[in-house]
Formats: sequence, structure tokens, C-alpha cells
Amino acid sequence: MRTDKRQSDELRPVTIQLNVNKYAEGSVLIEMGETKVLCTATVEEKVPQFMKGQGKGWINAEYSMLPRATQTRNQRESARGKLTGRTMEIQRLIGRALRSVVDLQALGERTITLDCDVIQADGGTRTTSITGAFVALSLAVHKLAQQHTFAKYPITDYLASVSVGVIKEEALLDLNYEEDSQAKVDMNVVMTGAGKFVEIQGTGEEAPFSREELDMLLMLGETGIRELIGKQRVVLGEAGSRIGVQLA
Amino acid sequence: MRTDKRQSDELRPVTIQLNVNKYAEGSVLIEMGETKVLCTATVEEKVPQFMKGQGKGWINAEYSMLPRATQTRNQRESARGKLTGRTMEIQRLIGRALRSVVDLQALGERTITLDCDVIQADGGTRTTSITGAFVALSLAVHKLAQQHTFAKYPITDYLASVSVGVIKEEALLDLNYEEDSQAKVDMNVVMTGAGKFVEIQGTGEEAPFSREELDMLLMLGETGIRELIGKQRVVLGEAGSRIGVQLA
Amino acid sequence: MRTDKRQSDELRPVTIQLNVNKYAEGSVLIEMGETKVLCTATVEEKVPQFMKGQGKGWINAEYSMLPRATQTRNQRESARGKLTGRTMEIQRLIGRALRSVVDLQALGERTITLDCDVIQADGGTRTTSITGAFVALSLAVHKLAQQHTFAKYPITDYLASVSVGVIKEEALLDLNYEEDSQAKVDMNVVMTGAGKFVEIQGTGEEAPFSREELDMLLMLGETGIRELIGKQRVVLGEAGSRIGVQLA
Amino acid sequence: MRTDKRQSDELRPVTIQLNVNKYAEGSVLIEMGETKVLCTATVEEKVPQFMKGQGKGWINAEYSMLPRATQTRNQRESARGKLTGRTMEIQRLIGRALRSVVDLQALGERTITLDCDVIQADGGTRTTSITGAFVALSLAVHKLAQQHTFAKYPITDYLASVSVGVIKEEALLDLNYEEDSQAKVDMNVVMTGAGKFVEIQGTGEEAPFSREELDMLLMLGETGIRELIGKQRVVLGEAGSRIGVQLA
Amino acid sequence: MRTDKRQSDELRPVTIQLNVNKYAEGSVLIEMGETKVLCTATVEEKVPQFMKGQGKGWINAEYSMLPRATQTRNQRESARGKLTGRTMEIQRLIGRALRSVVDLQALGERTITLDCDVIQADGGTRTTSITGAFVALSLAVHKLAQQHTFAKYPITDYLASVSVGVIKEEALLDLNYEEDSQAKVDMNVVMTGAGKFVEIQGTGEEAPFSREELDMLLMLGETGIRELIGKQRVVLGEAGSRIGVQLA
Amino acid sequence: MRTDKRQSDELRPVTIQLNVNKYAEGSVLIEMGETKVLCTATVEEKVPQFMKGQGKGWINAEYSMLPRATQTRNQRESARGKLTGRTMEIQRLIGRALRSVVDLQALGERTITLDCDVIQADGGTRTTSITGAFVALSLAVHKLAQQHTFAKYPITDYLASVSVGVIKEEALLDLNYEEDSQAKVDMNVVMTGAGKFVEIQGTGEEAPFSREELDMLLMLGETGIRELIGKQRVVLGEAGSRIGVQLA
Repeated sequence: MRTDKRQSDELRPVTIQLNVNKYAEGSVLIEMGETKVLCTATVEEKVPQFMKGQGKGWINAEYSMLPRATQTRNQRESARGKLTGRTMEIQRLIGRALRSVVDLQALGERTITLDCDVIQADGGTRTTSITGAFVALSLAVHKLAQQHTFAKYPITDYLASVSVGVIKEEALLDLNYEEDSQAKVDMNVVMTGAGKFVEIQGTGEEAPFSREELDMLLMLGETGIRELIGKQRVVLGEAGSRIGVQLA
Repeated sequence: MRTDKRQSDELRPVTIQLNVNKYAEGSVLIEMGETKVLCTATVEEKVPQFMKGQGKGWINAEYSMLPRATQTRNQRESARGKLTGRTMEIQRLIGRALRSVVDLQALGERTITLDCDVIQADGGTRTTSITGAFVALSLAVHKLAQQHTFAKYPITDYLASVSVGVIKEEALLDLNYEEDSQAKVDMNVVMTGAGKFVEIQGTGEEAPFSREELDMLLMLGETGIRELIGKQRVVLGEAGSRIGVQLA
Repeated sequence: MRTDKRQSDELRPVTIQLNVNKYAEGSVLIEMGETKVLCTATVEEKVPQFMKGQGKGWINAEYSMLPRATQTRNQRESARGKLTGRTMEIQRLIGRALRSVVDLQALGERTITLDCDVIQADGGTRTTSITGAFVALSLAVHKLAQQHTFAKYPITDYLASVSVGVIKEEALLDLNYEEDSQAKVDMNVVMTGAGKFVEIQGTGEEAPFSREELDMLLMLGETGIRELIGKQRVVLGEAGSRIGVQLA
Repeated sequence: MRTDKRQSDELRPVTIQLNVNKYAEGSVLIEMGETKVLCTATVEEKVPQFMKGQGKGWINAEYSMLPRATQTRNQRESARGKLTGRTMEIQRLIGRALRSVVDLQALGERTITLDCDVIQADGGTRTTSITGAFVALSLAVHKLAQQHTFAKYPITDYLASVSVGVIKEEALLDLNYEEDSQAKVDMNVVMTGAGKFVEIQGTGEEAPFSREELDMLLMLGETGIRELIGKQRVVLGEAGSRIGVQLA
Repeated sequence: MRTDKRQSDELRPVTIQLNVNKYAEGSVLIEMGETKVLCTATVEEKVPQFMKGQGKGWINAEYSMLPRATQTRNQRESARGKLTGRTMEIQRLIGRALRSVVDLQALGERTITLDCDVIQADGGTRTTSITGAFVALSLAVHKLAQQHTFAKYPITDYLASVSVGVIKEEALLDLNYEEDSQAKVDMNVVMTGAGKFVEIQGTGEEAPFSREELDMLLMLGETGIRELIGKQRVVLGEAGSRIGVQLA
Repeated sequence: MRTDKRQSDELRPVTIQLNVNKYAEGSVLIEMGETKVLCTATVEEKVPQFMKGQGKGWINAEYSMLPRATQTRNQRESARGKLTGRTMEIQRLIGRALRSVVDLQALGERTITLDCDVIQADGGTRTTSITGAFVALSLAVHKLAQQHTFAKYPITDYLASVSVGVIKEEALLDLNYEEDSQAKVDMNVVMTGAGKFVEIQGTGEEAPFSREELDMLLMLGETGIRELIGKQRVVLGEAGSRIGVQLA
């Protein structure tokens, strides 16, 4: 029995609130149980130095936790003077995942930056960030499409992410913090609406894992992601209607 | 006429929502118009190096803006690798202001850190942070007082802050961003429940100001702060009942 | 009785020595009692990035203390790898104050940087820096005016600054270090030759202060600043003769 | 046909040269084709702050590339003043992977640091680092075991790593740099001698991948790792004989 | 003919003003021509971590130039966030040179820090710093000796430094900035009162130099240093009387 | 008798292995006894900002030690976030020395960067770096000359460096680490093929040294350098044949 009485293949309650910020081109407050992440999308009509002159756009992500998002207060990275390895790893992951469903050529020479700020953390902050950031990105691109005719719609598919893990020989979907700290194997899965993998990151630091365990975890992850993408479709509604659709 | 149709001595709508964070010893989401600041209070049973062995406590504040709290996105200070002068100045102000109404001796050897994170900015973020942080601090001290008998209650008075300024020869209370950027004189006032000044910071970068203007601004500031302290009393209720009261 | 036997409204002995540096466009060694600050003005024919293309100039200030300017040695900020909050706050204040009496349009696209290096500190280093930096700035602008015809003279008024504070219920002018460390209220005032305020920064960290105390402090500050501006006029002589005067 | 004429399931030539450094407790120069990594193990009789007093040891890894390990010169991270996200991600991976086959309790309160310095890079530097660092670690623990009787031998299993990827619909083992830059899917696999997974990191930034592709990649990875572990056993010889063996 | 009409073996006018700082244990303003360096000695009753428990003292030096010490303004190293290589090299040299004439055992467990701040630079700032810092150090040790009986006096000999160089085939003593920038060979020499070398740093970046040139430069350097040490003896007077003298 | 039984004027065994890196324009692994340094030369068709538009080239050097190049592990400078003073001093020395035998005008607007990475350290790493870097530089320039006709060959002479020192009153050539740590006087000498000095850096931190000692050390240094240049000539062969030769 899980501490919050969920089934092994059951997500925590998910809510995705749109347009929570008055300035951002897209914004979302996503909650998965007690994990709350504010995701904003900022559109800028320029690209980073290394992308200039290619006629292509760029998607960038930044991730941060508020100091008291966790049980004990964490020192701010701005006060430390540098990002931790964990933060860098997470924001690289979020950016890479989102780029996998964006046609940078179709986007044109502009950058969309996704800021994922964890207001409260209870496990799964990086996967929740990806799921929320995708919605914020979709809102921003939808808004762009209202001002600008894209020959091809730049978002090619839906995208969501979830964590899975093994605790006491059982594979569980969507670990909360308490579960995460007991897990022997911990895996983050990112998938598209078409059911393809974008990222798989599985770690057995506490105990190596077998092929059978891996297969169970991938299956659970797929289940959870399908459900999350369903929720994304509902909240996006019209704003998501052109995702993955090409003009004839 | 002000753009949002307020009277010159009228505050923006204020809401103070308590206990918005499940981990922090005290937490508040304060909104003044479109300015929204999340304030959390963290209690730690230790003091900074320079305070050790004095039997006294410490109050510390940190301030930050989310990158898209503003109309255009700001670079994160964690990515820049250092705090801006503006941030340092503001967090020094918040800490100093709060310490003025805390009896550090009565608090005992513990540190309370107030994190003020600006979720959305529309002028007055530093004054709103002080007003909100005071409430978060009060909640944390009230909670401490339930576990621990203070010989003297450590919070000696209420405290709030507001901005005032001069625009086109008129003194206005509680400037929003648009007003702030047009103001010739800009002043932040911090006062106690007893009506005394804790901080006055007035700047006439655009145009020096006269003694008459100063007097008008101080009067307006006092009006606004009295109203804010009234709201603090209401939301704190029982949790604020021992502020400034000594045990017989 | 003050430790150095001054009256409550008496400044410390002030000396302002001009042209102490062979390279700088303007330079001053200002002493207020045992506080000694070297102020140099550097003129550069360019403006910072954010001011480009506006046809306006810029005034910038930097402040630093030599490691043994104080009773115990301070670590260099260059060795720490970053500026302290105190330094940033002070140099922002100096720059802001000086800009209030400079017509940036009249100055044209050039930057004047005021470096204020504290050789010895005995209280009031930020106010002394402002008073000295104004003189160095005036020398540099006077020199510019000899090479270049300004349609309008860029310095619009005199400017000086002094500290005031409350010690044991008495308001005192121009605190030395020992007084400053005992003061319950500490205020820095910056005023123009026309008797208008440019900055007021009053702090009652140790004890909030009343409106009556504030009024006394402002009056004392005005007295001190008038005297300082008198001294600036004398030392500048001809070099100050066009300040605040427009060509017909 | 691969550019270096290998079969799709063929490793590049592997050489592992032992004891290449006169000071380190364990050292290895590992070459996989043109990728060359120097791995040294340093034993220190202390643990990091966060591990103190638990009677357990720690394994730490650091990774770096020499500036001209690559086709064009890279700026040194010491000159940049900070580590890149890529370096942090890689050294966290190496440390985590090695710890999965070390019994930190059995190791006792000491730290072994594995430095992986890439002398020349031609793809697969992180996986080659893991494979080489495991051998350097094994040499250091073997040396410790000669001075010190371990109740339980601290290394619990062999460990190696390899990259796999999909290029033009074909799954390939052990990508070189040219292949890596063309791969649509890129995966790093870390496995133990017992055939269990320690880490799986698969990324389809260029194109999401299917479950079938994933299964093929995992199979190829397993093949390569079995071969690498065979080579580790041969070069370690006697020094590897107690790995995973408990005293009766 | 030198631009300032000196003979090839003639020093610039030298003045050494003692006790220019009210807080420092020793302080000196040294001028060599237009080069002006403020040297302060700070005594602390502790030693750096790496010297603890050896019963010995330490001499440390720091060097900095004020931003407008030179013809064009230099960015502050505190604003850059790090020391330049030039600064590090110079302060290592000053510390090393001073330690060569201090018996660290005799000094006991205390640190003397010499801060050399260049107020105005016209060539030879590092050599002038050494010559001035030696005097500040001597004042501080003399003061210590008045409070504390040293079994052996910690300063074992006088020490001074000068630059020499080759310009248009002529060897010159004590180069000013203009000469320094034209020199093909540039050498800094540090010597003791007993006529021994402590440091020789000769550089022929523009043109390698012969043994004959080297011999001429060393001879000139010795001449200049003897003269400087003569001046040190005069200004130190009684405060220098125990240098290099052991108690019977 | 020296610990490794060498004569006082005997170099350690020297080997210089060419083209050890597949990407660099020139590369060398130089060993002097147990000291091993990897030197790579990178040619870039641009010059640093401060050299632009002068039609001249630039030679730059960087130096680093692998963490376990020494008996105890050193923290990486990339992890510390800044270069040590020692590293900066050494890389400035290497660059300066190499530039003394390069005609920057003849080189044209390109930069050659010499990376000297110490794989294993046993004394003399900076002098060994210079000797090795000269060979790597020569290889790179020779390669350039095959693609490009230089009106004047940019390398004007051979260059090598060695350390010398005084231990127990005896002058010794080419100190190893153990000797270096016992030396009272330590000197690094850099000379050209024509027998001229480029750099002399002699330090008597432990004990000042006399003119006689200096003369002995310079003579020994010259002996060692002549031998090293002989070895450079042999390994470079054809690639060194145009050094110091002008086209008629």
C-alpha cells in the first residue's frame, strides 16, 4: 500500500492552470499532488549566438527551486554564485525534451525560453516541469500563430514525462518524495503523443536492475504519460488543435 | 486621474493568503494589485558565525524575482553568477526593517530567514515584501511560541511598508510600475504599529524635491501603512495577539 | 559632550585638496576629520551599452575601502571575488546623487566615472565621497568646457551630503565612527545648493524614530550641507562659476 | 558500412594499460579506438562533510577534457571559471555508476576519487571513462586490501559502459565521434558483471525512438559490455580476483 | 639623455613618509618620482591554516592599483571578480622577498600582512612596493618589540628593490613608465643590506640579452639598492636599529 | 651525491615524442626524468582583441597540472573556479619566453596557443613545458609553412629552459622534486640557440645568494640548455631547418 493509498499505476491528482502570469507569452501552474511548478514561456525575436544565420529557432529551458520548496531550506544558487550539477542536468533535459517535438526550421529565427520554477517540491519536479513546460510552450506558439502565419506549425507532437521506480520489488508510477528516497531504481521517461520515447534515464545507484524490471517500468511510464497527454489535450483545447498537423 | 482610477491616497487591492507552503514555518502570498510576492519564514536552531555565543537570535531576508515576473524576461542571478546591486540593497533593507521589531534577545539563539520571491511585479515589490514578510515572520514566531515558552514575546510591534511618489506635482500613494517609471521623486517608507519610522528612503534622481513635498509624502505613507497594518491584524488574528505584549 | 568636543551641530574639520592625481581629468582628496577619501573623475568619450544612441551622457560611481582604512583589516573585495552588498549600495547611491545635478543631455555622449577610494575611514565615508566626488566631477566638467563649447553647462547645481544621527536622545551632525556605532537612528542626507533634497536615507534598526526626531535630523543635515557647499564654492572658485548657469 | 569498417556490433580496439602514474593508488590509460582517457584513483582517509560519522566510505569522480582533445580547441573550464553542465552531468554519472558496485560500509571511512582526464576524444568519452575508472578503482582497492583486512571485499561486481545509437535506421555499437554526430538516437548503457543495468540514458533529441529500437539498442549494449568486462578481468587478473566474493 | 634628465645610474627622487595611517601597525607612503604607493602593515595574532601548529609566523603581501593610478582608467579587479595574473605575480613576489629577511621562527605565531596600494603609477610599482613595504614591516615589528620581548629580532637584514633595463643599447637604473615601455630588456632586482640577491627577474621578451648586458644590469641594480637601503636606514632611525642584530 | 646519482651538471634522461595528438597542429610528449608534460600547439586564424588590425600574430600559452600529477591529489582549478597565482605566473612565463623567438609580424594575423598539461610532476614542470612547447610550436609553424609561403620564417631561434639551484652549498643542474624542496636558491633560466638569455628568475626565499653563486648557476644553466637545444634539433630534423634562417 502506498502512503497516499494510490494504486501502483496511479498518478497523483494533476491540475494544470493556464495563463497564471500577466506578462508571459504562455504560462502554467502545474500541480502533481503536492509538487507545484510555475512554467512560463518567453518569446524573443532573436536566437543564441551559435544558431545565428541558420534561419532556425531555439528552445531553451531554465529550472530552479525556491529555497523553501523543500522540507529544509536550500541555499539559493544565486547566493552560491553558481548552479549545482543537478540544476544544470535538469534544465538540459527539459530543453532537449521540448526541442524533440519542435520543428526549429518552422519556428523561424526566434527563441522560446521555458522557465520552470518549483514553488513546492514533493518528488517528480523534473518530469512535472516537462509536462507543464510543454503546455506553456504550446500556449506561446498558439499566440504566435495568431500574429503570424506559420507555413508549418512548429509543434510536431504532444510531450509529457513521468517518473517510475522500484520500491521493495514493486514498480510504482509517479513517485512522491518519500517514495523517491526509498526507491532502489529510479527512472524518468519522456514520451510523445505518438507513443515514442524521447528520453529514458534510469538509475540503479542503490541496486542494479534487471531487464524484467526495466520492462515493467517502461510500461508503467507509458501508461502515466498517455494519461498526462490526455489532460494536456483537454486544457489546451483549441490552442493545441494544430499540434502535429501540417497545412495541406 | 490615475490609470487604475485610484484616488491619490488609495492603496491597490491587498490580499494576504496565509500558509501557502506546506513546509515553511510561516508562509504568505501577498498581492498588492498585480504585484504578487511569496514570503516564507524558515526557523533554524542556529545563528550566523558573527552572532555566535551572544544568546541572541537573528533575522535574515533574501529577495528574488522570477525571470518572467516582469514585462521582459530578466536573466536569473544564479546564471549571472552574482546578485545585482539592486537585489542586495533590497534584501538588506527587508532584513533591517524586520529586525527593528524583533527582540533578538527574546528570540534566543535561532535564525529566522524570510524568503521573498516575486512571482509577478507591478511596482512596489520591496515594500510589499516587507509587509508580507512581517506576516510570515509572525506566523513562524507564533508557531514557535506554541512549542516553547518565551519569557518575552520576540515581536515587539507590527510593521508594514509602502511606496509613495510625486508625479506631475502630485503626491501619490502605492505606485504601480507605470507610475513608478514616471515618478520624479520616489520614496519607500517603513513604519511600526506605534506610528514610528523604521526606514525612509527617498530619491529624487530625476528632480530634487522640497521640504513641502517630503512632508506630503511622509503623511501619505503613514496613511497607507496604517491601513496595511490594519489588514495584517485581521489576517493574523490570534497569531498576532501577543505582538508587542509583555508577560506580567 | 561629544568625544571630540564638537557641538551637536558642528562639522568635523573639512579640507578639500584639488588635483592630487596627475592623470585624472578631475581629482580631490577630501578629509572630514580622520575620514579621507580620494575621488578621481575619468572622462571617456563613450556611454554604456544601455545608453547608446540617445545623445546623452552618463555618470557612474565606484566606491572602495583600502583594506586597512579601518581599525581591523578588511579582506579585499577583489580577493573575495565579489562586491559586498554595502559597497554596491554605496556606489549606486553616489552615482544616483551626482546624476541628479547633471543634465545628461547637455553632457553629450560621454561617461564620467567617479572613483571614491577610502584611504582612511572614521565614519561618514559615503557622504564624504559624495561631497568630494562632486568637486572632482566639477573639475572634470570645467576642463571639458575649456576644450568644448557646451550649449548648456551640464552641471545644474551644487551637491553635498552629510550624516546625522540620534545618540542618547540627542540629534548630532556628522557622526564619527564611534558615534555612528552608538547611534539608534542614522540618516544620510544629500542636498543641492538650492536647498532641495536629492536623497534621504534614514534607518532606525536599533529603535524606530518619531516624526519629531526626523524633523530635527533633517534640519541638522541641512545646516551641515549648506556649510559644505560653501566650502565647495571656495575651493572650486572659477571652476565652479558656471554651475547652474545657462547661456543666454 | 561503418567508416572504420566495423560490424554494427563490433567494439573499436580496446587497450587498458595499468599503473601509468607513479603516485596514484590506481591508474589506467584506456583507449577505445582514438578515444584515450587517463583514469587515476586517489585514496584519502577521510570522507566528505555530509558522510561524516556514518562509518561508511565514498566514491567520487571528476571528468575533464584537455583543451585539444578535440578537433577544435576548447576553452579550459578553469579559465571560464566554472564547469559546464556537460562536465557536471558526466562526472555525476561516473560517480553514481561506480558507487553502484561498491559496498560503502565495507570500504570504511575513506574516499576514493576517480579522475578521468580525456587526452584525446573520438566519441564515447563518458562510457570509456566508466570502464577505465572501474579498473583504476579496482587496483586501488586491491592495494588497500594488501595493507588492511576487509571483513567484506568492498567491490561487489564488475562494471563497464558503452554507447549505442541509431544511424540511418541501423543500431550500432560503440559510436565514434563522426557516428555520434549523425545519430538520431544516442544511448549510454552501464552494466554489471552479473548482467544487470546500473544506468540507461537514451536521448532522441533529433527523433523520438520506438520500443523496438530501444530493445535493439539494449541488446547491443549488453553485448559490448560483456566483452569489455571480459577485458577488465584479463587485465586485472589477481587484482580482480576478490571482486564480488565474500569471506566465508 | 633621459626624458627626465637623469644620469643612467641615477634614481628618481625618493621620499618615504612614515605613519600615514592612524590604524595600521606600520604604514608608509613611498614616492619614487611620480610613482606613489601606500604600504600598510597589519599584525594579526594568528597564522594561515597551512602554517598552524609550527610555532612560526607568516608574512603575506597584497598589491593593487587604484583604477586611475594610470593614464587610462583600469577596471577594478573587484568588479572583474578576479585578480589578474599580473597582480598575483606581483603580490607573490613581494611576499617572497619580504620573507627572505624575516626569521619566521623568531616572529612567533602571528601574521603580518603588507598591503601595497598604488595611488599613482609611473613605472616600477612592484619594486617601489617592496622598498616601501619593508619599511612598513619594520615599523610594525619595532612596535611589536616594544610590547613583547623577542629572543631574537625577527628582521634579519634590510631589503630594497629597483628596476633596471636596456634602452637603445644603454643600461638604465629605475625606469619610469615611458622608459619601461621602450625597454628591450627589463629586470627587477631585490637585494639585502648585506649585498646579497633575493630575487632577480630579467625578461627579454622584445630581444634576448647577452651575459655582458646582464652583468651591467646587475651592477646598476646593486648601486640603486644600496642607495635605497641608505634612505631606509635614515627614515627608520631607531626603529631599524635592531635589524639583523642578535641578542648576545 | 644526488639521490638519482647524477653529476651536478647532468640533466635527467630527456625524451621528446612528436605528434602524440591526432588533432593538434603540433604536439609533443616531453619527459625529463619522471616529469611528463603534454604540449599541443593550436593554430587559429584570428588574434586576440588587443592585437587586432596590426597585421601581427600572437603566441599564447596555458599550463595546468592533472590533479594526480603529484604525490597528493590537488584540487582542480576548474572546481575551485579560478586559476592559482602559480598557474598564472607559469603560463605568462611560457608565453613570454616563446614570443621572444617568434617574429609576430612574419607570423601574420594568427594565434598559436600552446597548451602544456603536466601528466606527472617531479620538479621542473615550467622549464620542461617551455622546452617541449618550443618543439610543438616548431611543428605547427613547419606545417603552416607547407601550406603558406612565409616571406620570413616566423621562428627566429631555438629556445629551451632548465632549472638550477643551490643545495648544501652545491650548484646543481635540473632539480627533481626532492632536490627542489631542499634548495636554498632556485633559478629558472631560458636561453636561445644563440646563447642569449630570454628569462632569468632566481629566488632566494630561504637564503639570499651571492654574486658568485649566481654566476655558477648561470653557467650550469647554459650548459643544460645547450644540451636540450641539441636534442630539439635532432627530434625536429627537417621541421627545424628553417628556424632563424631568412630567405635571401
